[in-house]
Amino acid sequence: MTSKVLLSHGSGGVETAELLRKLIFSKVPDELMRVNGGLGIDRPDDSALIPIGRDEFLVVSIDSYTVNPPFFPGGNIGVLAATGSINDVAVMGGVPIAMLDSIVVEEGFPLSDLEVITNSFLEVLRRENVSLIGGDFKVMPKGQLDKIVITTVGIGVTSKPIIDYPREGDKIIVSGYLGDHGAVILMSQIGISTVDQSGKALTSDVRSVAGLMKRLNDKLWPHIHAARDPTRGGLAGVLNDWASISRTVIVVNEALIPVRSSTKYFAGMMGIDPLYLASEGAVVISVSPEYADEAVSIMRESGFENASIIGEVKRSAEYAGIVLIKSVVGGHRILEPPRGELVPRIC
Amino acid sequence: MTSKVLLSHGSGGVETAELLRKLIFSKVPDELMRVNGGLGIDRPDDSALIPIGRDEFLVVSIDSYTVNPPFFPGGNIGVLAATGSINDVAVMGGVPIAMLDSIVVEEGFPLSDLEVITNSFLEVLRRENVSLIGGDFKVMPKGQLDKIVITTVGIGVTSKPIIDYPREGDKIIVSGYLGDHGAVILMSQIGISTVDQSGKALTSDVRSVAGLMKRLNDKLWPHIHAARDPTRGGLAGVLNDWASISRTVIVVNEALIPVRSSTKYFAGMMGIDPLYLASEGAVVISVSPEYADEAVSIMRESGFENASIIGEVKRSAEYAGIVLIKSVVGGHRILEPPRGELVPRIC
Repeated sequence: MTSKVLLSHGSGGVETAELLRKLIFSKVPDELMRVNGGLGIDRPDDSALIPIGRDEFLVVSIDSYTVNPPFFPGGNIGVLAATGSINDVAVMGGVPIAMLDSIVVEEGFPLSDLEVITNSFLEVLRRENVSLIGGDFKVMPKGQLDKIVITTVGIGVTSKPIIDYPREGDKIIVSGYLGDHGAVILMSQIGISTVDQSGKALTSDVRSVAGLMKRLNDKLWPHIHAARDPTRGGLAGVLNDWASISRTVIVVNEALIPVRSSTKYFAGMMGIDPLYLASEGAVVISVSPEYADEAVSIMRESGFENASIIGEVKRSAEYAGIVLIKSVVGGHRILEPPRGELVPRIC
Repeated sequence: MTSKVLLSHGSGGVETAELLRKLIFSKVPDELMRVNGGLGIDRPDDSALIPIGRDEFLVVSIDSYTVNPPFFPGGNIGVLAATGSINDVAVMGGVPIAMLDSIVVEEGFPLSDLEVITNSFLEVLRRENVSLIGGDFKVMPKGQLDKIVITTVGIGVTSKPIIDYPREGDKIIVSGYLGDHGAVILMSQIGISTVDQSGKALTSDVRSVAGLMKRLNDKLWPHIHAARDPTRGGLAGVLNDWASISRTVIVVNEALIPVRSSTKYFAGMMGIDPLYLASEGAVVISVSPEYADEAVSIMRESGFENASIIGEVKRSAEYAGIVLIKSVVGGHRILEPPRGELVPRIC
């Protein structure tokens, strides 16, 4: 075993899970893994749940955003930090109501850039009707931090939490194109323009899914058994987590997975499977089959026009815990869980 | 006005307040400054309050810890991150019940050091009976972050929030020696041993005040009108905030303020007034005069043996908003609010 922290430890994949299990999860006594019978690190998910009344929960998420560059095609770290934590609350069935933020910035960072970032951050909060209730602000001496890190805490409420696991028979649905954010950050980091062959610029898909999740949950709860936003680790990460936790096999059809041609093109250039690239404005849900078409309709009516059923959840003694993908060239292959570090500082 | 972020913007003093007012507070619409009629950035304090029932509040704080060095005499960044957010909840009258953490670490950071830090962090949570309900973990490439930053969110509950301001006639009480943490970090940064003339090592005072605050609040609520932990900006920062908000004059007696002789000695060497140095295990309270002696007794019985009444709150048209300090050498002087950056990365 390595004696130093590796980039892969921060990838959100296999190595992150192993490190956190060793350093943290294995050392917290069971009674301190949640509060008041809610959900905590006993079930690491996008948010924790704190019961606050009869069938009422507070939904709380935390994420540190280190994205590099802080300004990227389609957004900046301020938009991302606000949106990301709102989305983490939303996919647990929470209606986001409040946010706290902590900004750590390098001495010498241009104030005008900081102002663009905080303006973008506040703009998301206003649009989503989320209150800013607290924060922190620290400066690190020049050379001790590359630009800026923002940590946000999203707080929501719900009486309809989405806390189940995918079940046998469920359909897997994605809300739209996957991997745009990851592709854009990757291209920006290596200095390649995101304008594709057709002259169109690929931009990050960063976008709130709170309104979408509320509409879905209002109509379909409790038939959406699980929901996630496929950020670090991409779709492959979400599906592998789900298959592993629920001991099912998840089978998806590559031909049905919406990936923009320019994202495919850029990912192909880099030799990366776009199903491992982060999205910041998409959701993946696992829903009872009888409600799958309605879920897709709600998504499309909500402005997520490329929503698609991409596969289903099956029981299989042989493949329990595995994700199988039906390839466009024929046959099935295993979609492995994310390993290594594809793109550092992607979010 | 400067066009770049300065170290002083992160000092927690005058420059921080001005920057945050300009970038954030002035741009958030009033209805998004709190949630459900609680307390938010309309009243920046150690924590926000979210009403969750009749006379019941959730108390939520966020802080990013950047302390350098991450290992210092008397503690490490893990102890500090857990304790600091617990203390921020406690001084608002909250009983800490849960925490979320986000660790951002530099590629190449020794895993053994990380494990000491996370062990220390978890040890505080176990001792304080605080659940760990969520977190995040990111790695930044080598050279893009100096070692480690930990952001913690403390969550507590209370039906007895401490949310008033100092009132005319109140006594100002501190729980014990001030400035030890700041002195220790400062000495560590410039590479001077914290062993003083008498051969004793000065250590950080990092320590939970949650038990102390609970005992005080159980007995004296609502007569403790305000409470703070004097971290960045030290006692001078807390008292100036209070005088300014309450439009009173706060008069303290230098001879009564407990400062360890070695802290005085080290601060003197650096030409720094210890009243501006951070403490991480102390509280300052403003309490009705008839309860002042009882407050001191409770503090001393709780293991804070050096608790002392150090001054009082007065009305004065001439000095409203000002802190006056009666000097040991005679006469009064103004204790200015903290300006500039005394010690970067102190917490």
